[in-house]
Amino acid sequence: MKIGILGSGVVGQVIGQKVAELGHDVMIGTRDPANLGEPRGWAPSLGAWLADTNGRGRVGTFAQAAAYGELLVNATNGLASLDALRQAGAQPLGNKVMLDLANELDVSRGMPPRSLATDDRSLAEEIQAAFPDVRVVKSLNTMNANVMVDPRALAGGDHTVFLSGNDAEAKAQVAELLRAFGWTDIFDLGDLGSARGVEMLLPLWLRVWGGLGNVPFNFKIVR
Amino acid sequence: MKIGILGSGVVGQVIGQKVAELGHDVMIGTRDPANLGEPRGWAPSLGAWLADTNGRGRVGTFAQAAAYGELLVNATNGLASLDALRQAGAQPLGNKVMLDLANELDVSRGMPPRSLATDDRSLAEEIQAAFPDVRVVKSLNTMNANVMVDPRALAGGDHTVFLSGNDAEAKAQVAELLRAFGWTDIFDLGDLGSARGVEMLLPLWLRVWGGLGNVPFNFKIVR
Repeated sequence: MKIGILGSGVVGQVIGQKVAELGHDVMIGTRDPANLGEPRGWAPSLGAWLADTNGRGRVGTFAQAAAYGELLVNATNGLASLDALRQAGAQPLGNKVMLDLANELDVSRGMPPRSLATDDRSLAEEIQAAFPDVRVVKSLNTMNANVMVDPRALAGGDHTVFLSGNDAEAKAQVAELLRAFGWTDIFDLGDLGSARGVEMLLPLWLRVWGGLGNVPFNFKIVR
Repeated sequence: MKIGILGSGVVGQVIGQKVAELGHDVMIGTRDPANLGEPRGWAPSLGAWLADTNGRGRVGTFAQAAAYGELLVNATNGLASLDALRQAGAQPLGNKVMLDLANELDVSRGMPPRSLATDDRSLAEEIQAAFPDVRVVKSLNTMNANVMVDPRALAGGDHTVFLSGNDAEAKAQVAELLRAFGWTDIFDLGDLGSARGVEMLLPLWLRVWGGLGNVPFNFKIVR
């Protein structure tokens, strides 16, 4: 499958490398695709990323990655996601399945960052409203990038990933990718309104992360 | 110990019965203490509750329960908590430790109820601001009442309860009560600002509850 990833930071790079390992072809879309040499925030340069993808990786603009992917991943900073998607354009986005794993964390008022999600709105729903044909599926936003792509490395994979979306077939496609990553406890929360719940988990996530001291962790629904 | 519980619904009654079983004396405070005969929402009448407490239970006004308790529990509906605490009055509340387990869930705009918690405010912080001498500890608001008081009945107790508060001694007192309930994984999130995180968990909780079909469950931090 061809996968288009919007966003060149840690999450985009880690997801991109994983899907390349799984045998998919992948393009990372970014604002500045010609810049292959500089680090991307906390992540290595895209040149280093390309070298790690065994020829399966490409770098392009947001529009090129959107056009390239049969399945899309929104791995941009949540505060900039709508802007990046508008740069990509409604035409290449089409009615594709988009795994949205972004969070809106505002660092402008100090630390810990403030989540903008409330029980009246979520980023996933705003993306869906702005691009009604895209089949948005929220998932993977409740853990760090290494846990996303290698859940078995933490407690043998005995923890939970959530799924929200309005299109059952799109959720099934994302669930298949999650199973390929190693996920076994994939919890379907329902329609995209339930993305509010997982986006609102970030303030708790950040406190747990601070309390544990930057070690891998995840939530599990014990039942 | 004498425990004062504000709120006569399911949560107040279940907590009250549990602390009576543990050998504490307990008073439930309510708006209408003379009404012992009628059910309390989904809970039995206070007359039935009294009969289950082996002589350790009492019923009084909010002010009487606040004056009675050496440790206080806010088990009122979160939308009415500040009003109930003002009825109790700052003088009987004093500088007591108050375990706040309330959630603000607005049902006026349909189901599922909307949580009012955001990353800019929490009920626990508003209670603390209104009664600066009270030592507010947020805990137990992320599960149903039966799980609160009998964690071992679910997966042998292998799941997590959170603790938020500004006073270390108050948190230690609440943690001691939690251990008496059977809790072993008691996760201290830090100051009372972290109550935003646990209050913001409710929208996800409600979706999981709906998905599982009203069976006992809880969150676990897998690390």
